[in-house]
Amino acid sequence: MEFIDELRFLKEQLKFKERFELPKHFDNVVMAGMGGSGISNKIFQEMYTEKPLFLIDDYEIPNFVSKSTLFIAISYSGTTEETVNAVQSAIKKGAHVVTISSGGTLSELGDQRIKIPRNDLQPRSAMGYMLLPLMRSFGMVKDSDIEETYDLLSKLDSDHKDATRHAQDIKKLDSVPVIYGAMPYRNVAYRWKTQFNENSKIIAYSSYFPELNHNDTLALAKTYRKKDFYFMVFESEDKRIAKRIRVTEKITNSSFNMIRLVGKSSLAKLFYLLHYGDYVSYELALLRGIDPAEVELLLTLKRAMKDQKS
Amino acid sequence: MEFIDELRFLKEQLKFKERFELPKHFDNVVMAGMGGSGISNKIFQEMYTEKPLFLIDDYEIPNFVSKSTLFIAISYSGTTEETVNAVQSAIKKGAHVVTISSGGTLSELGDQRIKIPRNDLQPRSAMGYMLLPLMRSFGMVKDSDIEETYDLLSKLDSDHKDATRHAQDIKKLDSVPVIYGAMPYRNVAYRWKTQFNENSKIIAYSSYFPELNHNDTLALAKTYRKKDFYFMVFESEDKRIAKRIRVTEKITNSSFNMIRLVGKSSLAKLFYLLHYGDYVSYELALLRGIDPAEVELLLTLKRAMKDQKS
Repeated sequence: MEFIDELRFLKEQLKFKERFELPKHFDNVVMAGMGGSGISNKIFQEMYTEKPLFLIDDYEIPNFVSKSTLFIAISYSGTTEETVNAVQSAIKKGAHVVTISSGGTLSELGDQRIKIPRNDLQPRSAMGYMLLPLMRSFGMVKDSDIEETYDLLSKLDSDHKDATRHAQDIKKLDSVPVIYGAMPYRNVAYRWKTQFNENSKIIAYSSYFPELNHNDTLALAKTYRKKDFYFMVFESEDKRIAKRIRVTEKITNSSFNMIRLVGKSSLAKLFYLLHYGDYVSYELALLRGIDPAEVELLLTLKRAMKDQKS
Repeated sequence: MEFIDELRFLKEQLKFKERFELPKHFDNVVMAGMGGSGISNKIFQEMYTEKPLFLIDDYEIPNFVSKSTLFIAISYSGTTEETVNAVQSAIKKGAHVVTISSGGTLSELGDQRIKIPRNDLQPRSAMGYMLLPLMRSFGMVKDSDIEETYDLLSKLDSDHKDATRHAQDIKKLDSVPVIYGAMPYRNVAYRWKTQFNENSKIIAYSSYFPELNHNDTLALAKTYRKKDFYFMVFESEDKRIAKRIRVTEKITNSSFNMIRLVGKSSLAKLFYLLHYGDYVSYELALLRGIDPAEVELLLTLKRAMKDQKS
C-alpha cells in the first residue's frame, strides 16, 4: 500500500468492531505498548479515569500487577521485544491479559486476543485498529460518533490545505516543530511529535499545558534559537487552559500557530486532530524529498538487539 | 540566598527527617504537583511500584479517587493553583490526604501535613525537602545512604568541572540540549530539561529509552539541524538499555555525550545525577550572562491567571 493510502485508510479502521469483555472484577488496569502501538494506550489513558491506569513503555511490569489486574498489551506486529517481555511477566502474575495484535508472539498469548487485520500497514498507520477496540470495550463509542468521524476524516483526506500550509511554513526555515497540547490531547501532541520523527524524519518536541507554564515558559522569552522552532498549539475547551495559552503567548512574545478542534463528538475531535497531524508530517516529508514510509533504521535496530554479538 | 547557595544547600536537605504515616489500608496512590514541586512526584513514581500510582499535573483528579486513595500533594509555595484545586477535590472524595508545603493554602489542608522549612529557596531548589519525605515515608532511605549522598554532593559542590565543560560545549554553538534517560531516571532527564528552561532560560528537550527507539531514532539519522542539538545520555545499568544506547548512537551516526552514574546506593546515584544537571544548567546561565534565579515571568503568569479581566 502506498503511504498516502495508509493515511486514507484510517477512516476505514473506524468500522473495526472487535472488542473484549471487561472482567467482572478488576482493581486496576495496566497497559503495555511501544511507539506507534503504545500511543493508543497513551491517548486512551487521558480518557479513562474510572480505575487506576498504569502505562508501561519498557520491559518490566510494576510489582502491584496481580490477579485483579486487567492487563492490556498492544503491538501491531506482535513481535515488539519490550511488550512481549511485559506480557510474559503479567501472565506469571495471574493478571487477566488482553492482547491486541496482527500476529507474532503476542497473538498467541492472553486470556482474550483481539486480532487486527494485517492489511500491510505500518504500526503508526493502524491507530484506528488499536484505539477502537479499547474505546469500544470500555463503552466509549456510539454509532453516530463513528459516522461523524468518518465524514470528517474523509473531508481531511480530500482537502487538507491548512495542514500543507503548516508543512510549508516549517520547511521554509527548516524549523523544529514544537507541539503543545493539554488534556485530553496531551498525547495527541506527542503523537504529532512521533509522526514528525517517523514520517518527516526530523527532530520535534511536544509538551503540555498547564505543566509547561512551570518551565518551558521561562525559556520561551529569553532562549536563543527561538526562531528555529515552529510552535503549534492545540486549542483548548477548558477556559483556564485557553487563558493560559493566550497569556503565555503574550508574555513570552511568542507566535503560536493555533490548531483548531473540529467536530462535535469526542471521538470526532480526537481523530480529526490526530489525522491533521498525520498530514502535516506527511506533507513535510514530501517537501523534504523524504520517503515517509521508510523505517529501515528501526528494522536495523531490531536486528541488532537480537544479535548477541553487537 | 544567592542562587549558588541554593544549589549548595541541596545536601543539607538530606537531613530533613519529617515523614508521614502510611494509612493502614490504601488501594492506590495519587500524587499532585506542578513544575519544580511536581518533579519529586515524577521521580518517585519510577521508584515505587507496590500499588498503582497515578500522577496529576493539572487541575482535575481522576474519578477513581476514593476513601481508599492515599492522595499526596506537593507544592513548595503551597499556593499552586492547579494543586490546590486538585487537593480540594480529593478531600471531597474522602481520600487520605497528605500535603507537603512550606505554607500557603496547602499547609492548611490534609489529614497529615508536612511543613517544609521556608529558607528562602525557589521551589526547584527544594528538591530534597520534597523528595526525602516521600522516600522516608515509604521506607526507602537508610542512614548510611544519606551519608554517602551527602559526601558525593559535597564533592560536586566543590568540583563540577565536567558539568561546566558540558555547559561550555552547549554555549559554543548555542545548542539545544537533548537529554535521554531511562528507568529509573527518565524524569531526572526531564528535570534536567526543566532546569535548562528555568535556570539557563533556553529551550531543551528530554526523552527516554527504549521508547525513543520507536520514534526519535528515525529522526536522528536524517533530520535537518541535527548539529544544533547537544545530546546528553545517561548511562544505564540495564544491559538491554545500555545496548540500545550503543546501537542507537552508531546506526544514527550520532554523538552522544554520556553522563556517568556515580555512587553506590540508589539514593546517592539519584541525587548525584540530579545535582550534576543543576550545575550544567547553572553554569550555562552564567556563560549566557543570564540570572539563573530570575523567574519574573512565572509570577507575571500567576498574576494574570488570577486577574479576571485578562
